[in-house]
Amino acid sequence: MISGHVFIATSLDGFIAKPDGDIQWLISRDDPQEDHGYNDFIKNIDGIIMGRGTFEKALSFASWYYTLPVIVLSQKLTENDIPEHLKDKVQISKLTPQDLMAALETKGWKRVYVDGGQTIQSFLRENLIKDMVITTVPVLIGEGRRLFGAVTDDISVKHIKTTTFPSGLVQTEYQVVR
Amino acid sequence: MISGHVFIATSLDGFIAKPDGDIQWLISRDDPQEDHGYNDFIKNIDGIIMGRGTFEKALSFASWYYTLPVIVLSQKLTENDIPEHLKDKVQISKLTPQDLMAALETKGWKRVYVDGGQTIQSFLRENLIKDMVITTVPVLIGEGRRLFGAVTDDISVKHIKTTTFPSGLVQTEYQVVR
Repeated sequence: MISGHVFIATSLDGFIAKPDGDIQWLISRDDPQEDHGYNDFIKNIDGIIMGRGTFEKALSFASWYYTLPVIVLSQKLTENDIPEHLKDKVQISKLTPQDLMAALETKGWKRVYVDGGQTIQSFLRENLIKDMVITTVPVLIGEGRRLFGAVTDDISVKHIKTTTFPSGLVQTEYQVVR
Repeated sequence: MISGHVFIATSLDGFIAKPDGDIQWLISRDDPQEDHGYNDFIKNIDGIIMGRGTFEKALSFASWYYTLPVIVLSQKLTENDIPEHLKDKVQISKLTPQDLMAALETKGWKRVYVDGGQTIQSFLRENLIKDMVITTVPVLIGEGRRLFGAVTDDISVKHIKTTTFPSGLVQTEYQVVR
C-alpha cells in the first residue's frame, strides 16, 4: 500500500514560508552541523510530490536539490515549464491526489515524500498521509504560507517522538490516525 | 519589572478554540492523571489578564476556575457584565496593554498570566511577554481562534525545554528574545 510522508519545517506560528515564498527566517536559524534526520528520512522514499509553489522555490536555488524523482502537481504548469536539465528528474501531473498515488503504486512506489503546504493539506484531506515529521523553528513570522489548512473533520494524530536540538529546533513525529 | 507569561494549549494547527469557542477537542485529549505543570506555573503568578472571549468561555463552565485576580481587557464589557459572585475576583479594564501593565506594577504585581489568543497577540506585539509554555494537542481542527497573529517584525524565541506526555501532548517552553 503506497503512503505519503511529510518532513517539513514550520515557524512557531505555523508558516512554511513568508507570503512571497521567502524562507530566510528558517535558513538563518538552521545549524548545518545538526543532523535533523533528512538523509535518513529520504533513504526510504521513492519519490517526491510537490505543488507549484514549492517547485518554483526549488528552481530558484543555485542547484537542483532533489536526487529522487519529483512530480509537480499543477493545473497551470506544462512540461514546457521544466528546465531542460531537469526533464529526466521532474514531471508535471494534473491528476487528483488519489489518482496520482494509485498511478504511482502501479509503478512500484511505496513511500512518497509529500512537500509544500497546499499539497500536504490536500493529501491530508484525502487521508493519503501516513506520518509527519514537523520541525518547529523558534520564531514568529506573523504571515505567510501555512503548513496546515481546512479539514473536513478533526484529524487525530499520534505522537511518536520529539527531538530537540541545540539550535532551538524542536522536531516532532506524528502518525495520522485513520 | 513586571512581565507577562503565557501558559496555553493549542491544536497542532495552531488553534486555541473552534470558531464558536469550543474546546472539546482539547478536553477529550487531556489526561487528568498527567501533571502538565499548571499548578507550578500559577504559583508564581500575581494575577491574570484575559480578553472577552476567554472570560466568556470561563463563565460558561460550571464553576469559576481561577483563584487569582482576573482582569478582563475589553472595550465592550462593563462592571455590570460581571456576575455578582465574581465582583471581588474580576474587573474590567479598557487600558492599553502597556498602560495596564504599568498600573499593575505600581500595585506590586510582578508576574502576570496573559491568556487568550487576541490578548496574547497584542501583548507579544507590545513586547510584554517574557516566556510562553505552549502545549500542543495532537489533532488538526482546521479552523478556529488562532493562538498567534500578525506581528510587526519577526519575533525570535529561545527554546528552553520540551516535555512530552504519554497522552501525546508536547509541551514546549520558549523565552521571547528582546
